Amino acid sequence: MDHITGTIKKLVNDPEDAVDELLEAFVSAHADIVSMKAARVVGRADEVAPKVGLTIGGGSGHEPAMIGYVGAGLADTAAAGNIFAAPSPGIIADAIRAADSGLGVVLVYGNYMGDVLNCRLAMQIARAEGIDVRAVFVSDDVASASETEWERRRGIAGDILVFKLVGAAAQRGMSLDEVERVALKANRRTRSIGVALSSPELPGASAPTFDSPAGVMEVGLGVHGESGIRREPLGSADEVGRMLTERLLADSPAPPGSKVAVLVNGLGATPPLEQYLIYRAVRSLLLEREVEVVRSYVGEYITSLQMAGVSVTVTVLDEEFIGLLAEPARSVRFVE
Amino acid sequence: MDHITGTIKKLVNDPEDAVDELLEAFVSAHADIVSMKAARVVGRADEVAPKVGLTIGGGSGHEPAMIGYVGAGLADTAAAGNIFAAPSPGIIADAIRAADSGLGVVLVYGNYMGDVLNCRLAMQIARAEGIDVRAVFVSDDVASASETEWERRRGIAGDILVFKLVGAAAQRGMSLDEVERVALKANRRTRSIGVALSSPELPGASAPTFDSPAGVMEVGLGVHGESGIRREPLGSADEVGRMLTERLLADSPAPPGSKVAVLVNGLGATPPLEQYLIYRAVRSLLLEREVEVVRSYVGEYITSLQMAGVSVTVTVLDEEFIGLLAEPARSVRFVE
Repeated sequence: MDHITGTIKKLVNDPEDAVDELLEAFVSAHADIVSMKAARVVGRADEVAPKVGLTIGGGSGHEPAMIGYVGAGLADTAAAGNIFAAPSPGIIADAIRAADSGLGVVLVYGNYMGDVLNCRLAMQIARAEGIDVRAVFVSDDVASASETEWERRRGIAGDILVFKLVGAAAQRGMSLDEVERVALKANRRTRSIGVALSSPELPGASAPTFDSPAGVMEVGLGVHGESGIRREPLGSADEVGRMLTERLLADSPAPPGSKVAVLVNGLGATPPLEQYLIYRAVRSLLLEREVEVVRSYVGEYITSLQMAGVSVTVTVLDEEFIGLLAEPARSVRFVE
Repeated sequence: MDHITGTIKKLVNDPEDAVDELLEAFVSAHADIVSMKAARVVGRADEVAPKVGLTIGGGSGHEPAMIGYVGAGLADTAAAGNIFAAPSPGIIADAIRAADSGLGVVLVYGNYMGDVLNCRLAMQIARAEGIDVRAVFVSDDVASASETEWERRRGIAGDILVFKLVGAAAQRGMSLDEVERVALKANRRTRSIGVALSSPELPGASAPTFDSPAGVMEVGLGVHGESGIRREPLGSADEVGRMLTERLLADSPAPPGSKVAVLVNGLGATPPLEQYLIYRAVRSLLLEREVEVVRSYVGEYITSLQMAGVSVTVTVLDEEFIGLLAEPARSVRFVE
């Protein structure tokens, strides 16, 4: 049976077909919310009144991201690449077209070289067809570059809060310039960092992506197994939660009296029990610093196949953002 | 560091404190939906108009179950035991009291000896206080006993669909007798079976609960590592999904023209990608048999810590159940 090649046991068919089979299953399971708009493009099943479009996307293997965030108050379309690989320019262009209702489209993608390159090519195609498209590349991972080089940082779970804020802005009927402004502001106010305890292994691969010895955690690891800041002895939930929060606060000082949204993201194999223990430590340190947690999200929002680990995201809120987070949303992963 | 004892890396503090820390974090993260009603009892944060109460519960380590199903249109309270252990009679009695608004309470629990015993003791306490309480023990796992002995079967992911149906019935204002009728009917129309690919390991344990060799899957394994029907070579997603569905259809014939709800549940470490491939195979076989899938749920609904595997649940629907599944609900895990 050629689907069994690696060291981690998996329930797949031919690995080459995995993404297309996933999308087929996803839209058939949730036909009230999503439908296929083109090959590898998932869009909203409902009729969308004219508004600025939001299109998202990226590599597969991060489910519920990105397809789980297509729906009212969130994204209009999502382009799906192969596992851990950017969608092609043609697929992204199809996603832009399907998201456009004549008022322009904002692309929100994680900041990875392949995604950025293919988005730029897709935008050229769409602009040649008369669609006004803006792109914002989420760069929330403080482990991947210094604050002075923030535009080089990669996008991890901060993507999700940016999607929510931008989707709400578009749903409210804001102009393309305004929705783009919200996207840029959301990115600059959002910081994340994660730890990995075990490695993902791709369907069809012969071994995990990286080696993960006992008693050790990888601090700052990316969602595709990119190298992090350092390898440290595995700490308790309190130690890890506080360490990650200290790192975020050092990068983006939230002075006493600030209001924030916190997202604790499970990367795949880490149970909700552990995610909530991390959340508890994060919240506790923020309260000590007199930072108010006004919105909390704990769960698997963007995964890395069966990798164990968590990331912590903090978005500094103002009145506009508090209002946008409270807007209704209805996607497969995110209903509010 | 005494929290590190086992072979699977975990983010915990003192394992003895894990459940209380989990609950503390859970209600602080989701204060708009849930609050603590007593020690180890999570209840609804909103004001509940008089109606029949629904209280659920069980061992911890299965998150988002059971606490994730407390909310409008679902359960009023949930009692939390230690990891993989039934809550005490005193805790269940507290959960019954907090769910009662004078019109009686239905208890819905998975059918495990400890849960059944402790629920019966708790019901005696509550009845002595004048609360009319009925109990329905979900017995959906076809691997755990034959159809003729269905009352001996244990409860696995079928719990979730029973909660939804019963919660909706109570929310509609049905009488205690009627809500109990819906619970019994929901249980009898619901069948599940699962496969495990790896073992869970409890916080503080020194090794996984069972041995899980390469290339092998455990068919019919319970959510606490109870032994299943048989050990088989690991199949493809199509093979496993069809085999599980065949087993469910053999037990509970759904004739051509039937309408069903399908729930594919990830047990912890199995990624959504694989859950959806299983769903695809289940749906395909049901369609071949001219069984219509009118509601689909794919995700982690009841887990077993970081166990890899999936279960498939099929509930045969009638017009009453189709209506109840469509009722609104708002809990942490389940928003409709």
